[in-house]
Amino acid sequence: MKIYKANILFTPTPGKLKIIPNGYIVVKSNGLIEGVYEELPENLDWRRQVMDFGNKLLIPAFNDLHVHAPQYRNMGLALDLELLPWLNTYTFPEEAKFSDPDYARRMYRRFVHELWMQGTMRSAVFATIHPVSTRILADLFMQAGMGAYVGLVAMNRNSPENLENTTAEVIEGMRMLKQHLDEHCDDGLVQPIITPRFVPSCSDKMLRALGEFAKETGLPVQSHLSENRTEIDWVKELEPESTCYGDAYNRYGLFGQTPTLMAHCCYTDGEEMELMRKNGVYVVHCPMSNSNLSSGMAPIRKFLDAGIHVGLGTDVSAGHHMSMMRVMQYAIQVSKLNYAQTKGAMPFLSLSEVLYLATKGGGSFFGKVGSFEEGYEFDALLIDDTYLNYDNYSLEQRLERYIYLGDDRDIKRRFCRGVELPEPVFG
Amino acid sequence: MKIYKANILFTPTPGKLKIIPNGYIVVKSNGLIEGVYEELPENLDWRRQVMDFGNKLLIPAFNDLHVHAPQYRNMGLALDLELLPWLNTYTFPEEAKFSDPDYARRMYRRFVHELWMQGTMRSAVFATIHPVSTRILADLFMQAGMGAYVGLVAMNRNSPENLENTTAEVIEGMRMLKQHLDEHCDDGLVQPIITPRFVPSCSDKMLRALGEFAKETGLPVQSHLSENRTEIDWVKELEPESTCYGDAYNRYGLFGQTPTLMAHCCYTDGEEMELMRKNGVYVVHCPMSNSNLSSGMAPIRKFLDAGIHVGLGTDVSAGHHMSMMRVMQYAIQVSKLNYAQTKGAMPFLSLSEVLYLATKGGGSFFGKVGSFEEGYEFDALLIDDTYLNYDNYSLEQRLERYIYLGDDRDIKRRFCRGVELPEPVFG
Repeated sequence: MKIYKANILFTPTPGKLKIIPNGYIVVKSNGLIEGVYEELPENLDWRRQVMDFGNKLLIPAFNDLHVHAPQYRNMGLALDLELLPWLNTYTFPEEAKFSDPDYARRMYRRFVHELWMQGTMRSAVFATIHPVSTRILADLFMQAGMGAYVGLVAMNRNSPENLENTTAEVIEGMRMLKQHLDEHCDDGLVQPIITPRFVPSCSDKMLRALGEFAKETGLPVQSHLSENRTEIDWVKELEPESTCYGDAYNRYGLFGQTPTLMAHCCYTDGEEMELMRKNGVYVVHCPMSNSNLSSGMAPIRKFLDAGIHVGLGTDVSAGHHMSMMRVMQYAIQVSKLNYAQTKGAMPFLSLSEVLYLATKGGGSFFGKVGSFEEGYEFDALLIDDTYLNYDNYSLEQRLERYIYLGDDRDIKRRFCRGVELPEPVFG
Repeated sequence: MKIYKANILFTPTPGKLKIIPNGYIVVKSNGLIEGVYEELPENLDWRRQVMDFGNKLLIPAFNDLHVHAPQYRNMGLALDLELLPWLNTYTFPEEAKFSDPDYARRMYRRFVHELWMQGTMRSAVFATIHPVSTRILADLFMQAGMGAYVGLVAMNRNSPENLENTTAEVIEGMRMLKQHLDEHCDDGLVQPIITPRFVPSCSDKMLRALGEFAKETGLPVQSHLSENRTEIDWVKELEPESTCYGDAYNRYGLFGQTPTLMAHCCYTDGEEMELMRKNGVYVVHCPMSNSNLSSGMAPIRKFLDAGIHVGLGTDVSAGHHMSMMRVMQYAIQVSKLNYAQTKGAMPFLSLSEVLYLATKGGGSFFGKVGSFEEGYEFDALLIDDTYLNYDNYSLEQRLERYIYLGDDRDIKRRFCRGVELPEPVFG
């Protein structure tokens, strides 16, 4: 058992920031939270056990529900095109390099290190079509002690020849990845996830096979949905029998039949929205990416009002930065531009709402993750905001200033499922 | 004379990034650039004079054309309201504290230090209505060696009683500030600027007096224009005889009769736009602020196409960060959301365009500032991007990654008019 003392802040619900000044959080040896207390319970011998973090802030760690590991090299680059030409011009050529395991190891080490640096303890990650490189990525997560869903990407149409796999190759590759993780990942923090790139990249046969594989294994699914107007029109052409983009996944059992993440949803509405709600499909909001690729502004307020699960994603490298704090800022700001455009019809997102999305909202895809409630896994960041806290700021203001002004320098300790993670030094 | 060797990058025109790998920049003892060279001119004794910065990047320093120094404490806070309630609830109470010179000195020291830290060597700054505090701010800029236009704020209506001054007080305060700077600022880097807060805060009589003062002294002017829909409607009520918001400044001689900055211009169009073009008034684009306060998306492409001067501003604390690199990112992204909304009708801004706006575009308000052309003042930042440059990136890509991913840590040296500025340590 461990006891940490600090200023504790978290969001049990979207609308409410819970603050416990100089509070105590008791973590059991299995990494789960026993409780959070204003005063130390009398039965605990605090002198022996309390680790006192002084005036620092303790918050839940961040969860990135949509990020492309092989695009790490291109982060902060090549943002002058819309989605489809961007894929062909910049992204596919970079992903093709991951046929080389040495290149993959070199880049994936940097990628996992940066997730650690930015305080993202759990992520849902697209790899590439390459099974060996994808296993390398999964192994790096295991070595770092961080949680991840890792996806071997499936794509067999409308893609460069050197970046296509066959249905058989994907299924075989996913079986091997699953077996590898079943055998080597004792704590289950790293898991496989079925990853059709998006409908334009996957034939009906491939989608059907992936849906059957999901049903057989119960594995979760991640993909892209309704990101960009041109893409949506293209899906209509490619899948004329589908009633909407989401239906093109749903008819093959890839839309909530097992836990499912759908990134973007900028133009999701009507039938597609109702299908997501009914099937419990997650919206992964990527406002930084949606701005960088001129995709649009997702109507997150509508999704939340409808009771749809929402999490946040950096979507590197269409997102230009791996900080989830930046994503939170963009989530608020884009909602405010939406608010201005609709002349106030769609209320914008609050700080506690976006913090909820970045922690508990997204964390729920990994289990009881992203909050400091009893029974939750202790994923946490210890923040030293001394240089920002030079006047009589309240704890809520300190958190707000940290999210708007802080960066990786301020994170002093990182915990994933109760374990403090040192800086990953690979190889 | 000094000679610096580095990878030199700058934007002589908006559309063109000029790159000189391992180039030389020769700076005369008066701080002006003699020239930029691919090879060292033969007549120069380079062994004695060249300071070799190796593989680092040398770029023009940033210019912030709109920032509120007394709002520094609120930076990263209190962004949940639109402009007018935001002013009344959060901003005016903070500005009122600057009646206390000790408080002002404490906050303004931090403010000037942060400008230095972020690589902003010139700025156009709103102070408050308080002459003593405003002079303290001007003195801090002088001590730091940084360029600034400093404005004593004029406001005598629709404001809290403790934050109003009279027309006589403003004119007297500005005369004293001018005299102080004429006497003490030998190099002229710090200058006064006439600063009516905005039309709703200033009676006709005050605006008229300020316009006459501008005519008499030739001093430049800064204010706010067409930021928010509610504000624009209010100006229509307050100034029924003005044909547009801009006309309410123009009729009093505060709209380009002397050099003029107008922040925001989110809804400027038609007559107002034409008046700005004709009078040479600068648009100061503050996209971070305009997102944070739900103000809207300024049509910068239209302003550029019309040949209107444009610069960038952080607008702290409606902008939440003092990094001009963040402002550049937002300028591109907001233009892309505009592009998506208009279905491509308004082409978005490029990286070289926003770099131009943050350097030469805004710099031109200060003279020959913001470029590395002959006769320009040598305002520069030396950037060490080693940690970002782990693969075979081109110099253009390195610059792009620095702007999207870098921060104050990467700025190794800062120059203003030829002088290297050490970290300001006040008092």
